[in-house]
Amino acid sequence: MTILLVLAHPNEQSFNYAIADTARRTLEDLDHQVIFRDLYCDGFDPLLWQDEFPTKAPLPPLVEEYCTELAAADGLIIVHPNWWGMPPAIMKGWVDRVFRPGVAYEFLEGDKGEGIPLGLLKAQSALVFNTCNTPAEREQEVFGDPLERLWQVCILDFCGIKDFERRMFGMMVLSDAEQRQGWLDEVARMVARRFPAQE
Amino acid sequence: MTILLVLAHPNEQSFNYAIADTARRTLEDLDHQVIFRDLYCDGFDPLLWQDEFPTKAPLPPLVEEYCTELAAADGLIIVHPNWWGMPPAIMKGWVDRVFRPGVAYEFLEGDKGEGIPLGLLKAQSALVFNTCNTPAEREQEVFGDPLERLWQVCILDFCGIKDFERRMFGMMVLSDAEQRQGWLDEVARMVARRFPAQE
Repeated sequence: MTILLVLAHPNEQSFNYAIADTARRTLEDLDHQVIFRDLYCDGFDPLLWQDEFPTKAPLPPLVEEYCTELAAADGLIIVHPNWWGMPPAIMKGWVDRVFRPGVAYEFLEGDKGEGIPLGLLKAQSALVFNTCNTPAEREQEVFGDPLERLWQVCILDFCGIKDFERRMFGMMVLSDAEQRQGWLDEVARMVARRFPAQE
Repeated sequence: MTILLVLAHPNEQSFNYAIADTARRTLEDLDHQVIFRDLYCDGFDPLLWQDEFPTKAPLPPLVEEYCTELAAADGLIIVHPNWWGMPPAIMKGWVDRVFRPGVAYEFLEGDKGEGIPLGLLKAQSALVFNTCNTPAEREQEVFGDPLERLWQVCILDFCGIKDFERRMFGMMVLSDAEQRQGWLDEVARMVARRFPAQE
């Protein structure tokens, strides 16, 4: 399988990098092809401008590449910290610019944009890993854990990805090396279970 | 009063611009001082990098200016379209970089980041205006209208702004000039009610 792995964190020493690295190695050990995109490292510009709104708009090369990779992926793994109940701006912009009509979804004929679109992604399965510094109970009860619904319903299901699993690790500031290693082992198990070796 | 009005939309012909313009004129007619920030027009870079994490980190001039304006505002008006249940990336980055520790919130002494921080914003009141192309019922029942909780709880209440009101206009693609004018009249009424002329 070809798995698109997308990471958004500005620090290469961060636990988010360790998650992405663990996911990548696990996939490679299972003989999957991994397309790893580190958005900060790529210098990705997250601003969607008006000229990219039309379905057939010409796109800058990097955005075009990102679109091709997203459309071709058999599975998706997303890694980012929880910043204000949302992904970092750079990953929000990856969604804004890359989850385009004609790539990730399309409106049915005669629909001016008011109807329920058709999800176009070939991938059927996605994993989302997040880190946070909010106690799990407070995240759930006060903030309502917005990332769950944003990724599952607003973005992935909308584009046709029905199988979804997410894990948020925290609280990072209180974790020690042993706990983090346990979390990385969990990442490896989740990745292997979701994307098993093909016969 | 000094009201900070922040807009994120790439098209100056958009209804979002018309909302911001109506809000600005209404505030000026009531003798408020308006600080109007058009993030796309400012060329704002929404990427938060590691070197800006520390509370006392030196900031680029525009970010510093944005922080000063946010801290000094008596009220806040936010205008943006609903893109994937979130603000456009440029406004997500305005939150990432400008709602900083020491500006918008602070952790209590001895708190490494795991506790409940103190909101620092002087503003007590905020209005959020959004546009969308999703039927209201579908937005509520399928997507859960994430913008409501994101702005009210995850961002503004977190930073000390308790009075919150939000209005999402739509569906834009099906609206005509008359309906849009009615919506702008509603914007003007909401702004005048929330930020009345001072004695």
